[in-house]
Amino acid sequence: MAVSKCTRLNGPLIKQMLDSVDSVLFDCDGVIWRGDQAIPGAPDVINLLKKNGKKVFFVTNNSTKTRKMYADKMALMGFNATEDEVFGTAYCSAMYLKHVSRLQGKVYLIGSNAMRQELEKVGIQQTGVGPDPISGVQIDWANVPLDPEVKAVVVGFDEHFSYMKLNRALQYLNNPDCLLVGTNTDTRLPLEGGKAVPGTGCILKAVETAAQRQAQTVGKPNHFMYDCVASQFGLDRTRCLMVGDRLDTDILLGSNCGLKTLLTLTGVSTVADAEAHQESGCPKRLGMVPDYYVESIAELLPALQG
Amino acid sequence: MAVSKCTRLNGPLIKQMLDSVDSVLFDCDGVIWRGDQAIPGAPDVINLLKKNGKKVFFVTNNSTKTRKMYADKMALMGFNATEDEVFGTAYCSAMYLKHVSRLQGKVYLIGSNAMRQELEKVGIQQTGVGPDPISGVQIDWANVPLDPEVKAVVVGFDEHFSYMKLNRALQYLNNPDCLLVGTNTDTRLPLEGGKAVPGTGCILKAVETAAQRQAQTVGKPNHFMYDCVASQFGLDRTRCLMVGDRLDTDILLGSNCGLKTLLTLTGVSTVADAEAHQESGCPKRLGMVPDYYVESIAELLPALQG
Repeated sequence: MAVSKCTRLNGPLIKQMLDSVDSVLFDCDGVIWRGDQAIPGAPDVINLLKKNGKKVFFVTNNSTKTRKMYADKMALMGFNATEDEVFGTAYCSAMYLKHVSRLQGKVYLIGSNAMRQELEKVGIQQTGVGPDPISGVQIDWANVPLDPEVKAVVVGFDEHFSYMKLNRALQYLNNPDCLLVGTNTDTRLPLEGGKAVPGTGCILKAVETAAQRQAQTVGKPNHFMYDCVASQFGLDRTRCLMVGDRLDTDILLGSNCGLKTLLTLTGVSTVADAEAHQESGCPKRLGMVPDYYVESIAELLPALQG
Repeated sequence: MAVSKCTRLNGPLIKQMLDSVDSVLFDCDGVIWRGDQAIPGAPDVINLLKKNGKKVFFVTNNSTKTRKMYADKMALMGFNATEDEVFGTAYCSAMYLKHVSRLQGKVYLIGSNAMRQELEKVGIQQTGVGPDPISGVQIDWANVPLDPEVKAVVVGFDEHFSYMKLNRALQYLNNPDCLLVGTNTDTRLPLEGGKAVPGTGCILKAVETAAQRQAQTVGKPNHFMYDCVASQFGLDRTRCLMVGDRLDTDILLGSNCGLKTLLTLTGVSTVADAEAHQESGCPKRLGMVPDYYVESIAELLPALQG
């Protein structure tokens, strides 16, 4: 099927594309905001899409916020959004453990307070978050106390990640029946000014290396994030648009799930990145080429106001 | 060259093989001791090899001990060994930075006190070891204070490894001129009773993932460890034997350097592991097939006493 990809979305094509979808999934950071600042025009775009009868959802690999924290942040920025439209990896991990793994047991959690809250909300117990301090001079690492009820190790972003946590994960995962679930594999969190900090992918890689097995990840580009939305809201994938700033997570998720895809240039990836994937001819990389791109989602505004 | 590999070393073959070498390199844990117990007969083997005019060396990927700590441990167990015969990755990393990298600047060290000492001994400054505590509620990770004199990040075993250390490594390595050196890539440290704890390879993998580049490693199976010994003692590789318990580090080092190789079964790898490599036909795995194997190095004793 020779469809031209990576098309600049403008003019009448915008309305035509929007008419062809019922639901729009947005990544957050780099798409509707950057850090604590809304992308200019983004709240209007979201609010008008809804006014025009579209379903709107927010799908993010960030595991440090609950659905409620996201809804609160969005309200402050002027987005008309509710908790149940937010699908972050803290929430989606809890859904995965509850409905896919059908976990009977506790979680050893390398993660945030938000992850703890989302797990508790669906009735999954976990061993606690925060620092896991080293005490004593000579530690018997291989014989640290373990909770016999733990049946899964879950790895998300954790600023208190440490050798002790890595070691505990290994000890739990020495039991082949203990599950290993990761929120996402993003290696870096990009910040303003070209800066970055280590992402969950680094922590997960350390745990996978120690455990000598691969984690099941729930975040983008894994189709589970889309499945989560689709099953709750009865989406038709042929009438869905995925909007994101990262080719390797957002656009690939869209491709993996058969959605239309739109790259916005207010975040990480560039058109040159997309073209390099296209020209590679590599089947795996072709999934990272979006159908369309815009400079900013604000470019959708005229078609929505008209 | 159709030489039969993985031969059981016994009978007259033992003396014949020993006569063909001038130098013997031993791995330590699982070869001459296990934990704090000498392998029965191992001290006699080492001491008799020397009495018979062989040069003996100890090459270990363990980065938590200085040469002196190793020599002291060996003396307590009855091995006749001196500091300058010990080549651990704490010492070899320092040699690598000094003589290969010719580092002009400080080291950001993820590692042990032993690494700090070996670096200081060759005049390389480092930023300190131990915990890197998180202070404050909101940390500005991307703007943590950095030492402008740091020109290399060195990663070894560090029980105080943390997200903060991972983050500092990323910030230093954002400068493409900053070197990344790892002691070794062992993913686990095996302990008695089938237990294990995470090895340096896990920590290094996290740093490599964050830095988006591969480290230069100095430990086995990298030939640098052998080069270190060979350059100081003028070894002839055709008359060297490497003795170890791990196919993927010890035996592969020997193969990589063109040494004779002997697997001893008192540690990690088995004859079945070696045969699986041999039968794979995969060139990379063939380097992990030893020339010979013994149940224990104690089996060399009769030929040395005779």
